[in-house]
Amino acid sequence: MSSIFTKIINGEIPSYKIAEDENFYAFLDINPNAKGHTLVVPKKEVNRLFDLEEDLYNGLMSFSRKIAKSLEKAVPCDRVGMAVIGLEVPHVHVHLIPLQKMEDIQFIKKVSLEKEEFEAIAEAISKGI
Amino acid sequence: MSSIFTKIINGEIPSYKIAEDENFYAFLDINPNAKGHTLVVPKKEVNRLFDLEEDLYNGLMSFSRKIAKSLEKAVPCDRVGMAVIGLEVPHVHVHLIPLQKMEDIQFIKKVSLEKEEFEAIAEAISKGI
Repeated sequence: MSSIFTKIINGEIPSYKIAEDENFYAFLDINPNAKGHTLVVPKKEVNRLFDLEEDLYNGLMSFSRKIAKSLEKAVPCDRVGMAVIGLEVPHVHVHLIPLQKMEDIQFIKKVSLEKEEFEAIAEAISKGI
Repeated sequence: MSSIFTKIINGEIPSYKIAEDENFYAFLDINPNAKGHTLVVPKKEVNRLFDLEEDLYNGLMSFSRKIAKSLEKAVPCDRVGMAVIGLEVPHVHVHLIPLQKMEDIQFIKKVSLEKEEFEAIAEAISKGI
């Protein structure tokens, strides 16, 4: 069965898309820790980050950097943090999270945003890449 | 003033070293979330991950991958997670953490290890690279 991220990449589940290329897809986390919380996934469905073949891993990190640099300009924050955990969805995903304080990256607190806010943030990040 | 990580790299503060090359240094976190919790730092003292110049960022991610793959073999775990936060020490550091459950990467729980355990883990990770 396809992972939820594969369904998002294929458009079977809608997403607030930021960018994609041949190998990677970036979109807003629908249940964000902080405004601008972004997920970057390889289109290839691999469970563990360090099981990605070297080229794909390097490509994912490089693609994530471009998104993060735009995110840092689009959303006021001290910096963008990065986390790759993956205990819940078995499809590699890089969290890029605008940080002000430690709890923004502890996955213990969520923020609610309206559809229009998601759309505006996704567009701002996308334009700044 | 030098960061605590620069002092570790220069040997002014002792560390359980795993590996180093011209640009990067990997060692065990002395206050680990989980056994095997490793830090990978660029020798160049830069505050924010995404302010690293592109080559150094890519090199850091590539170096971290080598360490993580060895760490996954050296320490029993579901997978190694990665986090870059940096709100406390203004010198980029990649956390590589053997994960069994979400709280292992939430920085809310710490484990105590003896000197001999640190030494044995550092050696096992180092040998497996």
